[in-house]
Amino acid sequence: MDLNILGKRAKEASVKMAAADTELKNSILRSAADALIARREEILKENALDVEAAREQVSPAMLDRLSLDEKKIMGMAEGLNEIAELNDPVGELIEEIRRPNGLIIEKRRTPLGVIGIIYESRPNVTADAFGLCFKAGNAVILRGGSDAIRSNVAIARVIRDAIGEGGLPADAMQVVEDTTRESAKELMRMKDYLDLLIPRGGAGLIRSVVENSTVPVIETGVGNCHIYIDESADSDMAVNITLNAKTQRMGVCNAAESMVVHSSCADTLKKIYAALREKNIELRGDERVRSIIAEALAATEEDYGKEYLGPCISIKMVDSLDEAIEHVNRYTTHHSEAIITADRDRAERFLKEVDAACVYWNASTRFTDGFEFGFGAEIGISTQKFHARGPMGLNAITSYKYEILGNGQIRE
Amino acid sequence: MDLNILGKRAKEASVKMAAADTELKNSILRSAADALIARREEILKENALDVEAAREQVSPAMLDRLSLDEKKIMGMAEGLNEIAELNDPVGELIEEIRRPNGLIIEKRRTPLGVIGIIYESRPNVTADAFGLCFKAGNAVILRGGSDAIRSNVAIARVIRDAIGEGGLPADAMQVVEDTTRESAKELMRMKDYLDLLIPRGGAGLIRSVVENSTVPVIETGVGNCHIYIDESADSDMAVNITLNAKTQRMGVCNAAESMVVHSSCADTLKKIYAALREKNIELRGDERVRSIIAEALAATEEDYGKEYLGPCISIKMVDSLDEAIEHVNRYTTHHSEAIITADRDRAERFLKEVDAACVYWNASTRFTDGFEFGFGAEIGISTQKFHARGPMGLNAITSYKYEILGNGQIRE
Repeated sequence: MDLNILGKRAKEASVKMAAADTELKNSILRSAADALIARREEILKENALDVEAAREQVSPAMLDRLSLDEKKIMGMAEGLNEIAELNDPVGELIEEIRRPNGLIIEKRRTPLGVIGIIYESRPNVTADAFGLCFKAGNAVILRGGSDAIRSNVAIARVIRDAIGEGGLPADAMQVVEDTTRESAKELMRMKDYLDLLIPRGGAGLIRSVVENSTVPVIETGVGNCHIYIDESADSDMAVNITLNAKTQRMGVCNAAESMVVHSSCADTLKKIYAALREKNIELRGDERVRSIIAEALAATEEDYGKEYLGPCISIKMVDSLDEAIEHVNRYTTHHSEAIITADRDRAERFLKEVDAACVYWNASTRFTDGFEFGFGAEIGISTQKFHARGPMGLNAITSYKYEILGNGQIRE
Repeated sequence: MDLNILGKRAKEASVKMAAADTELKNSILRSAADALIARREEILKENALDVEAAREQVSPAMLDRLSLDEKKIMGMAEGLNEIAELNDPVGELIEEIRRPNGLIIEKRRTPLGVIGIIYESRPNVTADAFGLCFKAGNAVILRGGSDAIRSNVAIARVIRDAIGEGGLPADAMQVVEDTTRESAKELMRMKDYLDLLIPRGGAGLIRSVVENSTVPVIETGVGNCHIYIDESADSDMAVNITLNAKTQRMGVCNAAESMVVHSSCADTLKKIYAALREKNIELRGDERVRSIIAEALAATEEDYGKEYLGPCISIKMVDSLDEAIEHVNRYTTHHSEAIITADRDRAERFLKEVDAACVYWNASTRFTDGFEFGFGAEIGISTQKFHARGPMGLNAITSYKYEILGNGQIRE
């Protein structure tokens, strides 16, 4: 099917969505949650076909992410119920300006319109992404991967039924059934219908979308996060935070991938090494690091730029805060960066001068997360500066308008 | 010169700019203003060469926009002094979140980084755009038209000297000397160096940038603005506002280009016609309009979509608020739209359902302007929903970051 038809339908649905009241949206979210549970057999049957088809072709880890079971469906339903509990961002009075001529200018939050999401294998994204876009009054077009297409279509059927029965247009949620590369490319060119395109997946997918899209994009998720251990760092805190940031969960974008260590902290470095060794983490450092930790491998230029997402960390030794900031700014992916120091002035400089969405003083980078920030939701973590930066909650998928109330004012 | 070299220099300058304190930026803005006046002969000499070269090729109106004189240079200087008086947006605490685990999350405003601006003949944009970008802590690359290149280079030389003497990098402001189409296209592809590209000029320029740029763009300025006269409109107010919106200044984006009139308002329509006729405004309407005003020409489909920027207005007659909203949403350029009505509920529906940056109840669309909104500055009027919408002041050319203050927190 011509994707422009989906675009046109979404655009039409988005007009009704923008005007939909909060209670109606919440009741549809709840009945969609109920329907996912009630019709779970229908979803699991289609998912079994996806899993069967993928079995020979993908890794066990990917097969696990693709597979649904009753518990995962309960999780999707719970997710929609939680979104129903969040405050509705639409209509929020962001700012009120009263002008000397009597005009009242109200800056109010609005939906963005139509959001496209291109994502990879996990079918639960289908329900999650729908829920967030719907709550913020947007229509959404979801283009998942071919692995999960039967599951995605089944989930969409259930949710679309719930939207239609609730009295809003089912086309507020559409799934692209064509999962070829061409369909992704076509979405990237649908500037007339899409107000935003969010890629969720690996670095390759994100790069391709950023380079090819004429629709505005939010770049998400790649995190080469650093922990800088300053000369005045509390040694135990440095050990704890580094260990947590590197090892608490390794395959995620807010995990630490690199340490920068002040040359006066050799003892702390040794303690960190001992702690990381217990977790089987490989160390790759420069010459000075290797003179302190003989077991460290030599770090290449490539190591400093790498998001390992696994049991490895690079280490750079520096002689000053300036050198540390320069190193971090050179290799940062603008996600999350931390300084461990007891010195407030040095912390301030790091926080101001490091160019990343989230900059930490004496805390683990693992907190970069919409839930940990108290947003109650997360549609991704933006690593760009335009429109939204850092963990994105519902507000990140809204816009605003100015409503100006007068009593006959004209311009002189 | 390879534009990437300008990009690289701007990127480097943007790091220092982000850390520059308010007083230093303000004192440089003031000394740049002084230098423009002190070195006015140098600028006027180069401008005379531009004017001489353009004389045979452009309209008198364009020649007037291109020409500088002492008064216009004083105006540029005054503009920079006014920008120095504005609050510095950088560092502003937008939001503070205190988490149960003791983390303090400060959402603070930051510069965007490097901003590119592509603009047409007026050389004063060179100083204005520099001033706004500089105050908000950004580096800027200005690519003006070939007509004004000598003037732009002269203005830039004066300003760059002032920046350098003040102790910030002169490369915070650069002018592209190559004014071929290729240089504009190259800027549109400089994603590695530019954080934002703003086209300022006619609809053709804006479309070309939106379609070709891989750098984030803010679409500005095209305004097919409507005045809807509802059945309960105060007749005198409707006449005043329509007359003001259409005729107070015709060549601007917030001028009215179209009227939508409820079928019960024939008398008001006649009064408006009488007022517009005095100003020599041509009317183009549908059959029903023409049955009331015999002198009106027939409006084509094209008329309803047109930004006349001159003495002409299209008129559509409708039987309901729904029909009015539908018509406006079909032809809107998402700039400014107004309803004239005494009925609050009907006004509310128009304000909510019309998809435009600025929606007015009983006031002229001519107020869509950064100064009229009290922003103290304006870098353009965004007609898109992404990042910034409506009149853009200093905040529109900023981003934000999260500074997270801890005392050893790790994620469980």
